[in-house]
Amino acid sequence: MLPRSVEKVIEEFGRLPGIGPKTAARMAYHYIRSSNKDASKLADALNEMEGSIVFCEKCFNVSERNVCDICSSKLRSYDKICVVEEPLDVVAFEKAGIFEGVYFVLGGVISPADGIGAEELRFPQLKKRVEELVKLAETEIEVILATNPSLEGEATASYAQDLMKELTDAGKIKISRLAMGLPTGADLEYADRLTLKRAMEGRG
Amino acid sequence: MLPRSVEKVIEEFGRLPGIGPKTAARMAYHYIRSSNKDASKLADALNEMEGSIVFCEKCFNVSERNVCDICSSKLRSYDKICVVEEPLDVVAFEKAGIFEGVYFVLGGVISPADGIGAEELRFPQLKKRVEELVKLAETEIEVILATNPSLEGEATASYAQDLMKELTDAGKIKISRLAMGLPTGADLEYADRLTLKRAMEGRG
Repeated sequence: MLPRSVEKVIEEFGRLPGIGPKTAARMAYHYIRSSNKDASKLADALNEMEGSIVFCEKCFNVSERNVCDICSSKLRSYDKICVVEEPLDVVAFEKAGIFEGVYFVLGGVISPADGIGAEELRFPQLKKRVEELVKLAETEIEVILATNPSLEGEATASYAQDLMKELTDAGKIKISRLAMGLPTGADLEYADRLTLKRAMEGRG
Repeated sequence: MLPRSVEKVIEEFGRLPGIGPKTAARMAYHYIRSSNKDASKLADALNEMEGSIVFCEKCFNVSERNVCDICSSKLRSYDKICVVEEPLDVVAFEKAGIFEGVYFVLGGVISPADGIGAEELRFPQLKKRVEELVKLAETEIEVILATNPSLEGEATASYAQDLMKELTDAGKIKISRLAMGLPTGADLEYADRLTLKRAMEGRG
């Protein structure tokens, strides 16, 4: 009933998490209806993003350069590294403006239900980065495991903790977790500034 | 914090009706994360849609040709025309497989709150199309005003009715509206007053 090209757009939108076929159809229809070339604007933006995005080789956040603005900044503290699941978690912390250290983006959480094991995440790179910071620093490094306060987030943090046990035992690093001011099951990305601030202050 | 190209994608997604900035960010992030070129697949689909979509010159539904499959079909009844707001309404009827006539897509509803007046909709084209069908037919034409049962939908149907008053008075067309009442599976207890009133009035 709908032209094949429209069906195709609906199909592509339908791949997005949380977007069902009805919403996908509404979205496609928005672009059919709009008169000012919105569809090609989005297409251009997507192509540009896909063409220009790299992952920072230090923290693996999305970036436009090989080393991101945060990891190349002289204003950040390199004795604190905040380990998060996703790039949007970095955005949340940076928007709150409550952390002056550096980040590390794991790329997800261990989630057997979704078939995501530890080997899918950037644990070797995390270890390497922490060792790099340990070499740079004169004092103990703080590794803040800021995964979401969910079952998967806890499992992931616990895996990271085991991974760095040697460094902890040697007194090179101190591992901390965000305070449980965050309600269990919440999504870090949606937390308000104060909640994030409390969680950061209460870490230990 | 996020690369400019990512912000741009978020901005474009954010223009979609009902998509807030958080959802837009999640959507953009899905494409950053996906490894199999999903972003460019969507971009290609959008460009193809924008390049290939035309509106059927008879019914103004989205189409790949100047006259759509329905309006050029020999299997449809040309003495029944179902006037709808949007192309997706045609999809809904066709999926249900309950109407063998032809359609006309108005392109929206009269909605003063959104600054949409009658002149934004395809009323002149509707009148022209109905007159065309009247000429073709030997009997009275049925015009089903199938706008949504909302305030705006009612106002739009009422405008269309006035527009075709002459044809109605001349006995050339008969105007009808979709029946109103309780939807299948509805819980009477939760039905709103107007629905109950209409269901009671239309009983039989």
